This record gives sequence, C-alpha cells and structure tokens, in this order.
Amino acid sequence: MLFIGKIGKKDKEEISKKYFDNMKKTRLALIQMKMSSDKEKNIKNAISKIHLAKKKGANIVCLPELFLTNYFCQVEKHSNFNLAESIPGPTTKIFSSLAKELNLILLISVFEKRTSGIYHNTSIVINEIGKILGKYRKMHIPDDPQYYEKFYFTPGDLGYKSFKTKKGNLGTLICWDQWFPEAARLTALKGAEILFYPTAIGWHPKEKKKFGRSQLESWLTVQRSHAIANGIYVAAINRVGIEKQGGKKLEFWGNSVIFDPSGNVVEKGNLNEQVLVCDIDYRKIDNVRRHWPFFRDRRIDSYKNILKNPIDD
Amino acid sequence: MLFIGKIGKKDKEEISKKYFDNMKKTRLALIQMKMSSDKEKNIKNAISKIHLAKKKGANIVCLPELFLTNYFCQVEKHSNFNLAESIPGPTTKIFSSLAKELNLILLISVFEKRTSGIYHNTSIVINEIGKILGKYRKMHIPDDPQYYEKFYFTPGDLGYKSFKTKKGNLGTLICWDQWFPEAARLTALKGAEILFYPTAIGWHPKEKKKFGRSQLESWLTVQRSHAIANGIYVAAINRVGIEKQGGKKLEFWGNSVIFDPSGNVVEKGNLNEQVLVCDIDYRKIDNVRRHWPFFRDRRIDSYKNILKNPIDD
Repeated sequence: MLFIGKIGKKDKEEISKKYFDNMKKTRLALIQMKMSSDKEKNIKNAISKIHLAKKKGANIVCLPELFLTNYFCQVEKHSNFNLAESIPGPTTKIFSSLAKELNLILLISVFEKRTSGIYHNTSIVINEIGKILGKYRKMHIPDDPQYYEKFYFTPGDLGYKSFKTKKGNLGTLICWDQWFPEAARLTALKGAEILFYPTAIGWHPKEKKKFGRSQLESWLTVQRSHAIANGIYVAAINRVGIEKQGGKKLEFWGNSVIFDPSGNVVEKGNLNEQVLVCDIDYRKIDNVRRHWPFFRDRRIDSYKNILKNPIDD
Repeated sequence: MLFIGKIGKKDKEEISKKYFDNMKKTRLALIQMKMSSDKEKNIKNAISKIHLAKKKGANIVCLPELFLTNYFCQVEKHSNFNLAESIPGPTTKIFSSLAKELNLILLISVFEKRTSGIYHNTSIVINEIGKILGKYRKMHIPDDPQYYEKFYFTPGDLGYKSFKTKKGNLGTLICWDQWFPEAARLTALKGAEILFYPTAIGWHPKEKKKFGRSQLESWLTVQRSHAIANGIYVAAINRVGIEKQGGKKLEFWGNSVIFDPSGNVVEKGNLNEQVLVCDIDYRKIDNVRRHWPFFRDRRIDSYKNILKNPIDD
C-alpha cells in the first residue's frame, strides 16, 4: 500500500529491473557424497546435505550419479538388478516431498526399472512444488573393467533433454555422456542454460600414479570445453571415497566442478564430501555468445557425416 | 649384402618390426612466425625456418594461417583482394619446389582466388615430392571487430579433409574451425591422425588485461578437448607480434601447441618466433582409443538435430 499514488515511472522501472535481474540469477548446490552399501544411510546423507544446501541459499540442487548405492557396476551381478526401481517410485516420492518442503528444484539419479529386462541409468528433474518435470535416460553407456554399465543399462531412447524451470533451463546428461561433444551440443541446442553431469568416475588404484593426473585433467578439460563451445554453464557432480567390490577397488575422485560460459571455474571440489554452492548469472550466457558467436557460424549444411561411423575405404 | 645367407627368422621379424615402428613415428615442426607487410620478406622467413625444421629432423612442417601477409582482415579494404592468388599459383610453386628439395611434407595457407568475386581461406598439403595432394577451404568463417573475414572469404564447400601421406593422415582445419567440435569430429572420422589448425588469433590490446588470460586458456582448452574427445594429435600454429591497421592494433598471442591423443601438451610455444619440433608416435592413437573407447559408443542414431539450429518453440 505504501507505494500507491507515490510510485513514479522511474521507480517502476527500477522495480521491474530488479525483478528481471532476480529472474536471471540463481544459486546452485552440487552435493559431493561418499556412498555406503546401506541405501537408507545414503538417502539420509543426501537429505541432510540438501538441507544444508537450502540453508546456504541454493535454489537448485544436484546429487551425484546413482547416489542411493555403492557403484554396483564395478561387478556384473544379476542380483544387483534388485536395486532398480520404477519412476515414479519410492525414491522419487521421498525427494518430491523434500523438494516441496524446501521449495527447491532437485536433480536426482535413479537406477530405473522400466520393465522386466529393461533398465536405465536415469536423471530426474523435480520442481519446487514436488512435481517430476521429466526424465533423461543416459544415452552413452560405458563399459570398461570395473565400469560394466553395458551389462546393466539399456541405452537411453528419450533423446537429449532440457527442462524449463522457474530457475532456468536445466540440461540433464550423465557421466560418460560428458566425453561426447555431440551430447553437450544437442542439449545446448534444446535451450539448456546449465548442463548437469551427475557422475561416478574414479581411478583404478593401479593406474593412479602413472595416469591419474592426466585422467583427471582430461575429464576437467572436456567439460570445460563444452562450456566454451556452447557458451553455457556446465556442472559435474561426482562421488568420493574408495569402494571395493569383487576384490577390486575404485577411488572416486570427487573434483565436482562448475564452469561459467567462458570456461572459467566458478567452484571446484576436492576429494572429500562437500556441498558446493555457487551463484549463476544467466545473463553471462547471452553476453558470452555475443562476443564468441560460435552458434552464428555453425555449418549445419556440412555436418551430416556426424550421423555415421568412420567410412571405410 | 651383409645379411645374405645369415639372416634368420628372428632377425627378419626384428627388421620388420623396426620398419613398422618407423612407419608409425614421425617428426613434426610448427613454424611460429611474425609477419611483416613485405610478402617477399615473409616468404624468405618461412623458407629459412623450414630449412631449420629440416635440420632438426622434421618430416612434416606446418606454417601459420595467411603467413604471406599481415593479417589483412583487420580492415575491410577492397584492394586487399589483390593479395589473393590461384592454386596452383606462385606460392604453391615456390613451396612445392622446396618440399621436393628438402624431402618434406608441407602444409601451407593461401588466400585463394577461385574466380572473380569468390575467394577462400585455404590450406594446402604438399607431399615430399612436391605434389599438391589437395586443398581444404575454411568452413567456419569468423567476423568480429578487426577479424572481418566474412568480407573476404566465401565459406568452404569442399567439406572436411584428411590427406594420406607417407608420414601419416593429416587433417586440415583452419583457425575459427577450432571452436567447433563438429569440425574436429568430422575430420577425425575421415581418418586424420593429426588435426592441423594454422591460426591467426590474438588479443585486442584493450581487452588483454581483463580477459587475455581467460581467452588464451579457452583457446588452449577447446583444442585440447578435440585431442581427448577424438583420441588424436592436435596442432595449432599461430603467428606472433603486434600488427597495426586502420589505427587499431592486434597482438597475436603465439602459444602454438601440440597435444597428444590423451590431451597432454607435447610442445608449446611462447610469444616469440619459434620452430617447435616434436615427435609423433601414431601408435598412441590406437592405444588411447582402446582405453577411452569414445568412438565405440557414439550414438549416431541420436545426433540428427546437430544438423539444425536451435528449434524455436
């Protein structure tokens, strides 16, 4: 009531500008977690860290890949399919309630049972009133010693996704997708302003000494390059800790990170559990793309062989 | 004659292995140059540095983008079209003779006059007997204050190219192409083992203090990411020095660089003229792609929207 009759044109403009600016900024939290073999404990850990993120002012929170469990893909074991669940299901129910309670947008990762014999590695976006906005099923599935994902996950068939929320357009990719510039580009073209990569990546203890640094740097470099090539924010959310299965170990390397649209590091984690919080200013995307206008110059008439494997002579 | 009658099966295998290994290795030179307004002087400088590269044992030598002249795209000036020439033409004649004389493979950059009113920014591969193996016409053309390339160059229409030589399969891209993961991928899919980016990139003196470091890092990062994402060698060959035209300056930032297929720096330049020489071991490509099998997992069924601009709602 205070303003009635008193508010002038200039005041209106200022209020409008402030409102507009708030729409263009948000605060993001990346939950870097250590997982145990106890599902309930992992859920409690995630919930407690999401509460902490809320206290720190986050509007959007992203959890690591398959945060409900140890990284079960370390071994090929049929009983591990028991860990999968439907969407919506028990886990989405818990985190939908939490999103609503805390007025937060949540990105969570679920081992999805679609039907008997079809399982996916799936990301879900839940909005601030607890509604599931949709899901993304991991498109690129790795298979490497101790990362036997092709045994568990049918490759995604929903394509690349960006979800419109009140706090920005959120692109959902997962771990191994991060090595494919095509996936980043396609998600950016869908309108995403942040690319999220919930991740489970680490060192084979035997390789760490010789290749560890180079592997970590490669991982950081490719994601940073997606930020630069697409003029977009990129966030990677990894787990930490050593996990042992089938007599073999993996050391998950943390280093969760967020790059701005110029590829500068906004925030980066270490090897411990952390709640990384950082401010996002979406206006940077427009500004960066104006100065480094890569989208303007794409030669879409010349890219058709991207849809092929190398052509044999 | 020494071996006749004496050479056993084991010796033969060893000789064969040594021969094979030699086929899989080569030595590369990147010529980082400062250009003047005197074409003849630039040619002499290039020739002298190619001789030095030969002395250092190089088999393949690459010159920077448009090394014959100052970076004339700093201004829009119709008389600059006089700088263009045909292919084959006077410049290819000089460097074909040189390649044959020195038994070297040369990659050179020419401002190509295709016909009246059609000019290209073109890369040429000349083999060790002086034969032009073919040309690549820059596909992605920039346009930015002091980089008015769209005024001069018609975008390339030959597609992406890799040239088979006795010293490996050489992929030819140019400068602004380096910001497009599509171009790197397409050239790698053609069979290239090294991506060459002759380049003319620098700082606007006014921007250098605030953005200079971030710009240079972005440039290094995207090229490094092409090496990683494609399991391939990547070489960028830039000019150095401050050039002034139309009352405005550009400081070309050198930093020519070669990355190995894991993204490690093999050799990197500074801000001065340099002949960077480095050894290439093509067996690394096979090994890296075996351990980081991104090519195996590309989802070519899902990339069709790469051929489009963002789809409006």
